[in-house]
Amino acid sequence: MKTLKIPEATIMRLSVYSRYLSEIDRKGIITISSGDIAEGVGVSPAQVRKDLAYFGEFGIRGVGYNVKDLHRHILKILGLSEGWNLALIGIGNLGLALSTYRGFKDRGFNITCIFDNNPEKVGMVINGIEVLHTDKIEEIIPQRKTQIAAITVPADAAQDVADKLVKAGIKAILNFAPVVLNVPPEIELRNVDLAVNLEVLTFNLGGRMA
Amino acid sequence: MKTLKIPEATIMRLSVYSRYLSEIDRKGIITISSGDIAEGVGVSPAQVRKDLAYFGEFGIRGVGYNVKDLHRHILKILGLSEGWNLALIGIGNLGLALSTYRGFKDRGFNITCIFDNNPEKVGMVINGIEVLHTDKIEEIIPQRKTQIAAITVPADAAQDVADKLVKAGIKAILNFAPVVLNVPPEIELRNVDLAVNLEVLTFNLGGRMA
Repeated sequence: MKTLKIPEATIMRLSVYSRYLSEIDRKGIITISSGDIAEGVGVSPAQVRKDLAYFGEFGIRGVGYNVKDLHRHILKILGLSEGWNLALIGIGNLGLALSTYRGFKDRGFNITCIFDNNPEKVGMVINGIEVLHTDKIEEIIPQRKTQIAAITVPADAAQDVADKLVKAGIKAILNFAPVVLNVPPEIELRNVDLAVNLEVLTFNLGGRMA
Repeated sequence: MKTLKIPEATIMRLSVYSRYLSEIDRKGIITISSGDIAEGVGVSPAQVRKDLAYFGEFGIRGVGYNVKDLHRHILKILGLSEGWNLALIGIGNLGLALSTYRGFKDRGFNITCIFDNNPEKVGMVINGIEVLHTDKIEEIIPQRKTQIAAITVPADAAQDVADKLVKAGIKAILNFAPVVLNVPPEIELRNVDLAVNLEVLTFNLGGRMA
């Protein structure tokens, strides 16, 4: 499936560049240099040029990049030219936080359905979306043409939820549950461990010198 | 300050390896190969060896790594041999989710104080910790010997909170607010954008082919 091996760090930086370009575009700025992008997001100009070079030549030497074109191109690379439908499974504190996370909508992620297995939560309406029982995953996900699911259930419930999502035809899973999930290789799976981010900080605080 | 340039992706993988080693250690397994680690966490054996090689030789060729030694060594590299005190600023849904996030405690992050500027939240007790007004940041952070803060306030309040944290002597900030913060260069700052993780998925779903 993959034609090029692009480092994940590059993808994550592209995501950051595109937010910055969106800001710059709103300010009415027409062209931008790799140095400006670098300064705006806090990486080196060489890194910006290297990251963009994976996807062909955009800039004009001595002139820079057209902001709108570069922004549109990066969104296309990231698969964000059109929106994605997103299911949320588990409506505890983290699920609630994600359901109101402005950043998702801003980037074209549209929450289409929310599931929980707690009878007290089923039937609640969050941002206009009724919480459904997880038993309905297989029925509702295809109906609502939903390709991506975020799992925020407790660790011991996560594999069962993942199995249901796979049967429902989901294409990608973002897993916040602190457990390793088994899914078929064609499903894109990404684990988010919030403590990892803290550990990058503690490493930088001098952990390695200890 | 930095003697070696270690890629951030390596640090993040070390964090993942150490979780896996902790599991393996609990099962009473004594030695492990780079291949076993690789399979357990879903990266290539060459990547595991390359990541560990940044920090010197641990393994014995043909025998593998001593699980306990390697685990202890990685925790030391990550700065996790001793615990860290953590302050939480902003007790909305995301703050609540973080305050009960098991993964922090498991990894030695101890929440010492919680702040909010909402009078209805000040005085609440969450996991045994009283929520204090953000005006108390400068007083309480040094008292409770807290080095790291997680910011989960709305975007328009984040810079003010960051300024208070800097004055309070904080060493590192994990910022969840969708805004670029200005802090002095000696402060370790890390931004967490939850949408970036979704965009790695959409890229992998074929965005770049679009």
